[in-house]
Amino acid sequence: MYSDEIHDLLEEKDIEKGDLVKVNGREGRLMPKPESGDPDSIVLKLASGYNIGLEPEEIELVEERESKEVEKPEVPHSEDKPDILVLHTGGTIASRVSYEEGGVKPAFDPEDLVEMYPELAEKCNIYSELVAQMLSENMEPEHWQEIARKIDEVKDEYDGIIVGHGTDTMSYTGAALSLMLNNIDTGVILVGSQRSSDRPSTDAVMNLHCAADFLIETGFKGVGICMHSSSSDTNCKIMNAAKIRKMHTSKRDAFEPINSEPLGIVNYEEDEIQKNFETKRSEYNPQFDLTTDVGLLKVRPGMKPEELEFMIEQDYGGVIIEGTGLGHMPVDSFDEKTSHHKKILNKLEELADQSLVAMSSQCINGRTDMNVYSAGIKIQEAGIIEAGDMHPELAYVKLMWSLANSESMEEAKELFQTDINGEINRRSTFNG
Amino acid sequence: MYSDEIHDLLEEKDIEKGDLVKVNGREGRLMPKPESGDPDSIVLKLASGYNIGLEPEEIELVEERESKEVEKPEVPHSEDKPDILVLHTGGTIASRVSYEEGGVKPAFDPEDLVEMYPELAEKCNIYSELVAQMLSENMEPEHWQEIARKIDEVKDEYDGIIVGHGTDTMSYTGAALSLMLNNIDTGVILVGSQRSSDRPSTDAVMNLHCAADFLIETGFKGVGICMHSSSSDTNCKIMNAAKIRKMHTSKRDAFEPINSEPLGIVNYEEDEIQKNFETKRSEYNPQFDLTTDVGLLKVRPGMKPEELEFMIEQDYGGVIIEGTGLGHMPVDSFDEKTSHHKKILNKLEELADQSLVAMSSQCINGRTDMNVYSAGIKIQEAGIIEAGDMHPELAYVKLMWSLANSESMEEAKELFQTDINGEINRRSTFNG
Repeated sequence: MYSDEIHDLLEEKDIEKGDLVKVNGREGRLMPKPESGDPDSIVLKLASGYNIGLEPEEIELVEERESKEVEKPEVPHSEDKPDILVLHTGGTIASRVSYEEGGVKPAFDPEDLVEMYPELAEKCNIYSELVAQMLSENMEPEHWQEIARKIDEVKDEYDGIIVGHGTDTMSYTGAALSLMLNNIDTGVILVGSQRSSDRPSTDAVMNLHCAADFLIETGFKGVGICMHSSSSDTNCKIMNAAKIRKMHTSKRDAFEPINSEPLGIVNYEEDEIQKNFETKRSEYNPQFDLTTDVGLLKVRPGMKPEELEFMIEQDYGGVIIEGTGLGHMPVDSFDEKTSHHKKILNKLEELADQSLVAMSSQCINGRTDMNVYSAGIKIQEAGIIEAGDMHPELAYVKLMWSLANSESMEEAKELFQTDINGEINRRSTFNG
Repeated sequence: MYSDEIHDLLEEKDIEKGDLVKVNGREGRLMPKPESGDPDSIVLKLASGYNIGLEPEEIELVEERESKEVEKPEVPHSEDKPDILVLHTGGTIASRVSYEEGGVKPAFDPEDLVEMYPELAEKCNIYSELVAQMLSENMEPEHWQEIARKIDEVKDEYDGIIVGHGTDTMSYTGAALSLMLNNIDTGVILVGSQRSSDRPSTDAVMNLHCAADFLIETGFKGVGICMHSSSSDTNCKIMNAAKIRKMHTSKRDAFEPINSEPLGIVNYEEDEIQKNFETKRSEYNPQFDLTTDVGLLKVRPGMKPEELEFMIEQDYGGVIIEGTGLGHMPVDSFDEKTSHHKKILNKLEELADQSLVAMSSQCINGRTDMNVYSAGIKIQEAGIIEAGDMHPELAYVKLMWSLANSESMEEAKELFQTDINGEINRRSTFNG
């Protein structure tokens, strides 16, 4: 609720939610106050689709909202059509502005989805469930577990599951679900959207459609994500959810497969679905446990010795180092600094004695190789293991999962370096 | 020197440096021990060009090295040709194996360079100087300053300067040199190599050649880097040294321009040099100072409150946050966790009161925009400023430089967000 002052101001001017107003010179539709927002700010949805908060100095009514009763369409379920569940976790993918009920309302009723995506309902029976409701920067490992448990619980009832998710941390969730739902016998596809569903330029529609098409047409089992493969609305790529990364803040094709090839392409221009995966036959083996005390150290010139000290003091279960190049950090030098670097090496040993420490590369693409230079060999001798071609964020999630699902440090090391669900690509065919 | 044991073992078997030997079943040329290496390990250079260290259990001579006296070619200097200085800092770009004198010897005499790159000497008069000699993971901010001061000192004597540099931290050094040598009136190009110069597959030759061609032919002034633009030896791209990143651990075209276009292409296949830059006319304004106490915090699910506490305790001059998406971290949630996130916001305020805190995005490409979501607005209200389209590593170096070259926090904030030498691209033409 807005503060009493704002409330009175709006009443005085006869302004209601959904009206087009001008506040301090900015024009937009008056939005309800978000639950945790500042009650003294007015929230406007601009024509661009973005919301802004303004402390009102001047406010005037431009145009009353059109009042309309929305008739919800019936959901035409049929036994001939596959059953697709849309699980909501928040994010912009399946949300829409509701002036009647207030707020950006997640469209989590099947009716809402059918209304928003009528063509989707022609292809499949849409079901819908809410697991969480948050911007993805607020996702924590416990939420990954909630989502995974929900999928595990309902997977046999559906022909495919689409998980709507904010894009900010979608790659972390993708990695976690991929590990927790190892060899799942249902197709699960994470779908995000870089532009909210109520903006004309939204990518939500196509991402959702392509995900459904891929689930329906290819018999995909496992955990993938589906996002635009270029800036135009012509095709989407479906990728291994563990081996992806958000590589652009805003563009539609922000997600890139890392050290992997897409699992498929849904091409609307050519009306074609490419399938680049083989169906697996191993047994479904869900493991939801995570050890969340995992630290992260980013190597860089000017890195401080106290950062390493801090990691030692915290006594974390695991630590991911984001090294340079093939997996390096300054522990060996032909410079006069040798004694300083010797100390770093001692500290690394101390750290690796108590925590499972894995080296990844801030290059993101490619793989660590700590046998090339003598420094790498020394780092390994200190007890630090390689993340191989797991990029830092994937390695971070894998470490949480490996620590929780092992009896000992040695077992955790082995599990970390073992491919569970396609997250380690041993024989890279990539250039280099 | 190798240990007495190794020394005796080699003597006993009549094995000398440079001989082809088999140690524990691995075949390679016996290398001299690196200065800081383990004296009980034998270093072999494998056929692949990589060095490995082995504790010898078995060692046998396969083939004696061919002894040859290398005649150093004369350096054909001429007044008609431009003068190009090659500054060495280490890395693989200008090093070669020397069995006579021991070790991987940096080829820092002009004679060595002429011998290794005879075609280069036909184009220009090559001069050479050693500034540092280290793998680039050992580079520290003080080394950036040494390199910058050396360039500043000698720039007027040459038509162009090539800086040989290890690739691991080349993008950090590039950003630092670009800022420190603002508007330099000489062309300076950093050149690295992903494969050592003595491997058949080395990329060093072409990178060096292209850098020299670009300096000679285009009249480029400023700080750039020159690396392969694809995996084949057909062309190199020259990029703004501030806006690049090593994006692959091993491939030749590992460097990508970030939120920028290449400054030019040297295309050997088409025998063409493309020039995509305009010549600047501002005054050269070198500023070498750096404030090196800058911390770095990487946002991720499962990030611990104590990481923020640690940053506060350290009382750094500056902190770079690597946020998610448009510049987010969990400070606002519609979840039951709100009170926890309120605390994060208070901590952020405390941090920003004492340090200059800037938010960048782990997406690397694109730019922060903290006015889109309410969480972003709150983070700004806590005193945290945006890094815009400066990717995290660039933002980190820029913060060091801005803090040192300002009188106050306010001035440093302004300097950080002001384009000094092309490191901020205000009007992005990039998709999104």
